[in-house]
Amino acid sequence: MLLDGKAISNKIKEDLTKRVKNYLVKPCLAVIQIGNNEVSNIYVKSKEKACNQIGIYFIHVKFEEDVSEQEVINKIIELNNDSYVNGILLQLPLPKKFNQYKLLNLISKTKDVDGLTDINMGLLFKNHNNLVPCTPLGIVNLLKEYNIDMVGKHAVIIGRSNLVGKPLAMLLLQEDATVTVCHSKTNNLKEITKQADILISAVGQKNLVTKDMVKENAVIIDVGMNRVDGKLYGDVDFENVKDIVSYITPVPGGVGPMTVAMLLSNVVKNYEKNQ
Amino acid sequence: MLLDGKAISNKIKEDLTKRVKNYLVKPCLAVIQIGNNEVSNIYVKSKEKACNQIGIYFIHVKFEEDVSEQEVINKIIELNNDSYVNGILLQLPLPKKFNQYKLLNLISKTKDVDGLTDINMGLLFKNHNNLVPCTPLGIVNLLKEYNIDMVGKHAVIIGRSNLVGKPLAMLLLQEDATVTVCHSKTNNLKEITKQADILISAVGQKNLVTKDMVKENAVIIDVGMNRVDGKLYGDVDFENVKDIVSYITPVPGGVGPMTVAMLLSNVVKNYEKNQ
Repeated sequence: MLLDGKAISNKIKEDLTKRVKNYLVKPCLAVIQIGNNEVSNIYVKSKEKACNQIGIYFIHVKFEEDVSEQEVINKIIELNNDSYVNGILLQLPLPKKFNQYKLLNLISKTKDVDGLTDINMGLLFKNHNNLVPCTPLGIVNLLKEYNIDMVGKHAVIIGRSNLVGKPLAMLLLQEDATVTVCHSKTNNLKEITKQADILISAVGQKNLVTKDMVKENAVIIDVGMNRVDGKLYGDVDFENVKDIVSYITPVPGGVGPMTVAMLLSNVVKNYEKNQ
Repeated sequence: MLLDGKAISNKIKEDLTKRVKNYLVKPCLAVIQIGNNEVSNIYVKSKEKACNQIGIYFIHVKFEEDVSEQEVINKIIELNNDSYVNGILLQLPLPKKFNQYKLLNLISKTKDVDGLTDINMGLLFKNHNNLVPCTPLGIVNLLKEYNIDMVGKHAVIIGRSNLVGKPLAMLLLQEDATVTVCHSKTNNLKEITKQADILISAVGQKNLVTKDMVKENAVIIDVGMNRVDGKLYGDVDFENVKDIVSYITPVPGGVGPMTVAMLLSNVVKNYEKNQ
């Protein structure tokens, strides 16, 4: 059975649209982009479109690549202090000369709708979730929407990034799953993935997860986004895996739309919290 | 083979003593205790003794249980601002009426030698380790002292506390281990622990880990401290497990002394960083 992230995200967006309609002042998301990375351009456009769709005011701050660090810092501080702005997002990756880590952590923890600042990660770690990274949040919400039981289940995550693997491990522990984190150094990947009741791949490698690595009736979440000859593939060999599992996310149309929906949801929730 | 935490901690303490001897001003640890919990009294005394032993100046701030929250807050702020103080530790547990979470997070991240503030947890989460909780740090150092290879190995942790299980998971991921976190809701504990190359139990239940749950030649780390009829036991059925594994920590004399050594080490390192 398909885990239809597209459909669920539409449901979430409809709900957000209804809520936002009632407000005098719109919720507001500011996206800071530096340079002209083509993939970033596409992502920023799609965020803008989604915001417009549900009624979030969208500010696109686009700096040339030769902007000084101080100018970017000043802008972040300005947005932190702007009471109309409910969310600030630094579009990654930044051009190499910028200290991504430093700039990211200047975003106020109350506006960090990507949930990537040190302090919001620490809060997640200690089960005091404030703003949580959108992709892992989208995954857990997708599982919940399909009433997939996580308690005591063995969830195996491939990938240990700050963006997906590690925050997802924390969220799944909060849902009482037993959690294993695998990565490039894992000795016996297949042996471990074959035990997974819920298997999440967040690596970025086409056909990394093959049929022989998957337990029958497992739930498969594919976070991979691999563009090959203009076509988008996940990490999972979907065609061969889909028939032996109970649930699986398609790529595209699985985790991707959920990520965007969670960003919108973080902005609106943040807005409502401060009303 | 025994993982002799006592011996290793003595080695660490000797090294710290030598370093501290050279300084004009002593490193300084302040421990704040509220009330008169007997176990806390013992722990504070043993920290004081260890500090005296290696030349760390020890401040014991002991409040009566009826102290106001504001007084405690003022003291934490005072110690945060005292440039002679290199480490501040809030002795846990606090009496019930106090908001432990709030008070803990008032400690400056630069003096939080227990590594328990939200921000230091977030830094650990993102591999930007600042001050790291002493027990997990002690465990990883013990493994390193015995040259136990962690890369690609399957480390299974029983227990998901903020104090041990979760920070240890982060440290072991940083060492390139594959990490599984089990807990009270785990369905098939034995099945999972039997796969562990390195098995860490941090639950607090005598004889939780029995011989049939352990793989031959595994490395066993016992964080349990269970007092039964005046005698101290770990979580592991030591007598029956010890003969089939390659390494095992005794209780007492394993993880416990390493925890104290890491606290001292955090204080001295913090002092040296600020010289």
